[in-house]
Amino acid sequence: MKVLLINGPNLNLLGKREPDIYGTESMEARLAILQQQFPEAEIQYFQSNIEGELINALQKERYDALVINPGAYSHYSIALMDALKNCTCPKIEVHISNIHAREDFRHKTITGMACDAVISGCGLEGYSLAIQFLVQKITFNS
Amino acid sequence: MKVLLINGPNLNLLGKREPDIYGTESMEARLAILQQQFPEAEIQYFQSNIEGELINALQKERYDALVINPGAYSHYSIALMDALKNCTCPKIEVHISNIHAREDFRHKTITGMACDAVISGCGLEGYSLAIQFLVQKITFNS
Amino acid sequence: MKVLLINGPNLNLLGKREPDIYGTESMEARLAILQQQFPEAEIQYFQSNIEGELINALQKERYDALVINPGAYSHYSIALMDALKNCTCPKIEVHISNIHAREDFRHKTITGMACDAVISGCGLEGYSLAIQFLVQKITFNS
Amino acid sequence: MKVLLINGPNLNLLGKREPDIYGTESMEARLAILQQQFPEAEIQYFQSNIEGELINALQKERYDALVINPGAYSHYSIALMDALKNCTCPKIEVHISNIHAREDFRHKTITGMACDAVISGCGLEGYSLAIQFLVQKITFNS
Amino acid sequence: MKVLLINGPNLNLLGKREPDIYGTESMEARLAILQQQFPEAEIQYFQSNIEGELINALQKERYDALVINPGAYSHYSIALMDALKNCTCPKIEVHISNIHAREDFRHKTITGMACDAVISGCGLEGYSLAIQFLVQKITFNS
Amino acid sequence: MKVLLINGPNLNLLGKREPDIYGTESMEARLAILQQQFPEAEIQYFQSNIEGELINALQKERYDALVINPGAYSHYSIALMDALKNCTCPKIEVHISNIHAREDFRHKTITGMACDAVISGCGLEGYSLAIQFLVQKITFNS
Amino acid sequence: MKVLLINGPNLNLLGKREPDIYGTESMEARLAILQQQFPEAEIQYFQSNIEGELINALQKERYDALVINPGAYSHYSIALMDALKNCTCPKIEVHISNIHAREDFRHKTITGMACDAVISGCGLEGYSLAIQFLVQKITFNS
Amino acid sequence: MKVLLINGPNLNLLGKREPDIYGTESMEARLAILQQQFPEAEIQYFQSNIEGELINALQKERYDALVINPGAYSHYSIALMDALKNCTCPKIEVHISNIHAREDFRHKTITGMACDAVISGCGLEGYSLAIQFLVQKITFNS
Amino acid sequence: MKVLLINGPNLNLLGKREPDIYGTESMEARLAILQQQFPEAEIQYFQSNIEGELINALQKERYDALVINPGAYSHYSIALMDALKNCTCPKIEVHISNIHAREDFRHKTITGMACDAVISGCGLEGYSLAIQFLVQKITFNS
Amino acid sequence: MKVLLINGPNLNLLGKREPDIYGTESMEARLAILQQQFPEAEIQYFQSNIEGELINALQKERYDALVINPGAYSHYSIALMDALKNCTCPKIEVHISNIHAREDFRHKTITGMACDAVISGCGLEGYSLAIQFLVQKITFNS
Amino acid sequence: MKVLLINGPNLNLLGKREPDIYGTESMEARLAILQQQFPEAEIQYFQSNIEGELINALQKERYDALVINPGAYSHYSIALMDALKNCTCPKIEVHISNIHAREDFRHKTITGMACDAVISGCGLEGYSLAIQFLVQKITFNS
Amino acid sequence: MKVLLINGPNLNLLGKREPDIYGTESMEARLAILQQQFPEAEIQYFQSNIEGELINALQKERYDALVINPGAYSHYSIALMDALKNCTCPKIEVHISNIHAREDFRHKTITGMACDAVISGCGLEGYSLAIQFLVQKITFNS
Repeated sequence: MKVLLINGPNLNLLGKREPDIYGTESMEARLAILQQQFPEAEIQYFQSNIEGELINALQKERYDALVINPGAYSHYSIALMDALKNCTCPKIEVHISNIHAREDFRHKTITGMACDAVISGCGLEGYSLAIQFLVQKITFNS
Repeated sequence: MKVLLINGPNLNLLGKREPDIYGTESMEARLAILQQQFPEAEIQYFQSNIEGELINALQKERYDALVINPGAYSHYSIALMDALKNCTCPKIEVHISNIHAREDFRHKTITGMACDAVISGCGLEGYSLAIQFLVQKITFNS
Repeated sequence: MKVLLINGPNLNLLGKREPDIYGTESMEARLAILQQQFPEAEIQYFQSNIEGELINALQKERYDALVINPGAYSHYSIALMDALKNCTCPKIEVHISNIHAREDFRHKTITGMACDAVISGCGLEGYSLAIQFLVQKITFNS
Repeated sequence: MKVLLINGPNLNLLGKREPDIYGTESMEARLAILQQQFPEAEIQYFQSNIEGELINALQKERYDALVINPGAYSHYSIALMDALKNCTCPKIEVHISNIHAREDFRHKTITGMACDAVISGCGLEGYSLAIQFLVQKITFNS
Repeated sequence: MKVLLINGPNLNLLGKREPDIYGTESMEARLAILQQQFPEAEIQYFQSNIEGELINALQKERYDALVINPGAYSHYSIALMDALKNCTCPKIEVHISNIHAREDFRHKTITGMACDAVISGCGLEGYSLAIQFLVQKITFNS
Repeated sequence: MKVLLINGPNLNLLGKREPDIYGTESMEARLAILQQQFPEAEIQYFQSNIEGELINALQKERYDALVINPGAYSHYSIALMDALKNCTCPKIEVHISNIHAREDFRHKTITGMACDAVISGCGLEGYSLAIQFLVQKITFNS
Repeated sequence: MKVLLINGPNLNLLGKREPDIYGTESMEARLAILQQQFPEAEIQYFQSNIEGELINALQKERYDALVINPGAYSHYSIALMDALKNCTCPKIEVHISNIHAREDFRHKTITGMACDAVISGCGLEGYSLAIQFLVQKITFNS
Repeated sequence: MKVLLINGPNLNLLGKREPDIYGTESMEARLAILQQQFPEAEIQYFQSNIEGELINALQKERYDALVINPGAYSHYSIALMDALKNCTCPKIEVHISNIHAREDFRHKTITGMACDAVISGCGLEGYSLAIQFLVQKITFNS
Repeated sequence: MKVLLINGPNLNLLGKREPDIYGTESMEARLAILQQQFPEAEIQYFQSNIEGELINALQKERYDALVINPGAYSHYSIALMDALKNCTCPKIEVHISNIHAREDFRHKTITGMACDAVISGCGLEGYSLAIQFLVQKITFNS
Repeated sequence: MKVLLINGPNLNLLGKREPDIYGTESMEARLAILQQQFPEAEIQYFQSNIEGELINALQKERYDALVINPGAYSHYSIALMDALKNCTCPKIEVHISNIHAREDFRHKTITGMACDAVISGCGLEGYSLAIQFLVQKITFNS
Repeated sequence: MKVLLINGPNLNLLGKREPDIYGTESMEARLAILQQQFPEAEIQYFQSNIEGELINALQKERYDALVINPGAYSHYSIALMDALKNCTCPKIEVHISNIHAREDFRHKTITGMACDAVISGCGLEGYSLAIQFLVQKITFNS
Repeated sequence: MKVLLINGPNLNLLGKREPDIYGTESMEARLAILQQQFPEAEIQYFQSNIEGELINALQKERYDALVINPGAYSHYSIALMDALKNCTCPKIEVHISNIHAREDFRHKTITGMACDAVISGCGLEGYSLAIQFLVQKITFNS
């Protein structure tokens, strides 16, 4: 089972960027944990600050399940939402901070409209919960 | 470790109500799974259709962590949000369906503004993910 | 044929409350008329000022048709709307005064979105028209 | 007792137009039923697709009571609302489908602000309920 | 002279809840002060977190003057506003914190539209000012 | 000098319709006054309740100056505004009542955007002021 | 193959009205071109400034395909939109100027919501493109 | 008969300021014309750029009729509107340019809500029309 | 203890202006009562219709506590709000009528956002309550 | 004559993506048709999912006419609109589906504000109509 | 070269008012720096808290260039914007704090719409930058 | 001292693009001036039309101060705003034209919320003013 894990803009700075909001754990550390937690999942990681490259990745990669944290693009990228609609596999959106408890313009997630589920505010632990959900979903439906 | 799990209006009908949206699993079945999954957690369950009784429960019960699915009250109950602000333990909001993919008036969660995290669209599996998050959070911080 | 007739907040004061808007007829008087007008219908009456108790009644009672006047809850109770969606029998909303001719915040009926029909402004006669509609609907469809 | 029954745009197609919304009963059939149901009422029927002709009819005809279904004009015709304000007899607005359960721009009825009552969603049976209300109102007040 | 003093949701926690906003004085302490300050007034106290029970109290109790702090219900409970409209005695709304200096959704008070006056931001001293106003009003008008 | 004077919907009832708003003077009486006041102007009068016939009149008639009271169409008829834009002669809009002092939806005049001037609230005297303005404008510019 | 071509308000002035926006070509000239370009299509032309007459034409004429330029009615006529919904043949809306590059209130087309396609800003050439589209669509689907 | 004529901010520059919008006639010239046109009226002129001084003038002067051009204060000065409400004599608002044909924020006149009438777009001739209206109104009512 | 009492526009007319809203008591009478009620307070009174003079007074006077009734400026004067933010002493806003029960544009108080408390609807008695609050606050905190 | 044809995000999937909305024809097939239909036009095709690369193409390529389908970027890319404003050649926007008949956030086209014309809902046939329009425009103007 | 430097409400308190927002430098100190930095400029300084006096200054003074910090009036004074439109010399608006990073109601500057440029957030250094810009502009254009 | 100067979309065309808005000076010319004006500053220039590449530059480059003109991305790129928040050095936003005097959608600058200051409308001279501000700020604080 192949899981594509995509991170959007500024998420390459995890652990360094605004640590009071995003914590001090780096994405690399979390990826190691994820691989350990889900040996049955082959996790492929992709990050870009460029909206269109995220769309490219969604289109070109082959995967059975999708975890995406579109970062700020969640709030205005209809193009990314359209790309997500094209993905027919199970897909889940993750936000590290609780978007509902921040500025007004972060309450709405356009890309989340095209996903099965949204996890928001669980820190990087959110990625673990997301993959756990996908693994369970795929295992039980197959 | 005591976990209070609160369900709001119409969630006593889980498994029977609009199964295309909420699925066919009942809350009772999920509670059994939860108890099995988290033997370290003493889960206390409360459901009410009455907004003020949910507030009463939040005030009167003693608990170390909170999982709440306020149902439709999420979208307009400032009173419930005020009650949640009073809870200083880790707290997480769960929605069974993905509120971002439904009617416009369900996109905003006022109660979610007063929680640490929100999980939306993972079905009743969302309760498991929520407690897992709380257990981890409390274990690592203690 | 069992008809559940539910009245929401402040409607226990009918005949006494703001008579220039709601008239001087009491609900008891109207119930007597209704029973006379529709001998084939067994009318069960329930009133509460508590939003959640109205939801409880909708869930617990057994009935073939529903008449509901949610009073002010019409304008903001998504929880009540959700409960109404669960009722699969014929259902009709009644307002004694014409909500379209009053304050702006009374023009919208959220609960009415989940009913088959809405009668507004016919005074307590509106209850009679509502049951007549339900009786006819059930008789002709059976 | 003379009752003027006015239908607005596209309602000449009743029974043929979007039958999943408006049903298959024709207006002619309903008029026959109405005449039978209310022998004491002399029902005069007028339909037009032209906003101003509806106003003309409201001004020129002589009648003791009014039933009007302004169709789509309900949602934007201030001119028609002004004309209705001029009518001092009992008047009631009818909508065949439940306008509160359709597109957002159909939730508001401007013309309904100038009527005594609004019946919405009872199908063509709504015309019968409307006349019954008017007959009762006039009989009891006289 | 009987004064009904009603407190809404979360106000049973006064002195304990968010003390930086609501202070550390408890309601019990204030009630003692009030009784001392206004020996001519028989003060009856009622608190509930349940919207409909507040309405019940407004309807059932007998009183010559009303002080109400509807808490968060101020901002969305049209039902409570309707109940207040029914009270024909002098009535005043109290808020402990200054609602105009807090979040946007607290600036508007729907229930305050149905009261004679609103006192906001005077802490629990606001209850004293409110009763003083009512006593004066009733004394001078009688 | 030919002056076209156009009245929109419901203005054929002047003197009879809502006299507390529109007064008791009839249009016929005012037309007689106008002819007397402005012997140099050949006044042609046209009234219709039909939006499109007002447009027809604007297109087909020949005139040197225009006075128009579009009634309720002022507030929503973009079609009438387009027709007015086509008229290159001096043109003025008249409202009998003060539209700024009535309901919110009457504050905006779309047709007034395409006129040189708007007179509102001067009663039927407004027509006299309007023609006086036009006569003066044409006389001084020629 | 019969094509109904309908023009709305003020479009009888094409070639004369605001030529900087609408150009100098007349509708008559364009109709001649159309007949020449599409000999297989029998084009029937109808123009009216009256909203309801456009609805009448849509209902009464017989046609295999529809081209409609509703002019300003596009922006507010829900009645016309309802009439268009009744037409089950291929239908296309044409605007001579680019409505997206003009005033804000022209950006939205309500009638366009009920058509298959919208062509806007191609001048009168837009009618040719529209019929070409319809001819192709009908030819290839039959 | 004493007429108070008040001009608001920037109107002391009439004839010099943005002549394409406000023309080239000065206020002094117009005042001379007015005195000539209305010998029966004693016209007192006051101009200020200061909102509160306009209120002062409204309160302190003695007059039988009022003409006011509040300039830009029309669009936001609730204080001036309150002062106008206090004036019980006939009162009329004048705008030199047509406020409905300018920027959006000039379409609404708050002060005009508290006047009997509004004349907008007649240039400085608007002052003449205004006084003519007031003279007539007072003469006929006395 | 020096108390500065500031009244904004039109409040010099108290007792004369719209007595059904503001009552018949004059400010002078109330000032006499206040001096009597609070002998420990040296009350300095200032009134102006000019927004900037109110700001001047706030800046130049020396005082230990502030009572301000900004009248209509409450609803739009950000400049006055800024000036109030500069005052670090206890400060309270008073409105004679209940602003929440009047027109929509009076529901919001911008200046109230910069005060400790707001009293609205207690008539001129509101000034007494305000000073009582300030006296108590200063006495207990010193 | 060189025609630049640009497709925005997700349009590389034409024929595969949401075929009920976008049909089953591929862009390659359409390009072949276009070259055949317009031998006089040298068509250069460019597609990118990256907003800025579309801007790059608009700036760097040399062309006499432009056809652009900005996909979802139409609805929010002011940057792309600015780039289009720089193109002084004839330019037309194409949308395969009818944007006016889809979700609200697709009704507005920002990029369309900077084009001469917009064709929406004609499927891939829209590209043919667009080039036909451009060819005609350039031929007749040259 | 004469430069008029105008400061609006509360800016006489610079250095004392909310120093965390506006810093501790006084306007007097800055004026001394300015005179030193720009010996070729004769700087005339004017400050007032009164909106209309700012307008007076703009009208009466003679100057070749204008620097204005309208303070809070920026956000609502259409009257001041009108006065600025009358100034035909180079003019620039200065804000000491960054208005885009403060409360929502400070993001919009109405007066800035009538200036050539706006500098916001550079502290009192902003005045220096502004004059430098004006000097350069006038020198190079002359 | 290293200064990073970043320009966003379409700003590579400076001097060629819409010269009536952006002037005729090229960026290259300005860079030469800047280097001459600020010999103490090592200016590094970067331009891209691609949103994400601007973010990349902000993250990867090393600099002591930042000047950024995000062009149209200012108005909607939350992703760029997030990247700017990460930069802890002094940072200033520059717009060549006055964004407050252009279309409504250009009045708001989201990226400006995350900068220290915004200079808008000073032409390319704005870059000089910006660097001068930064140099001064860094010199005086160090």
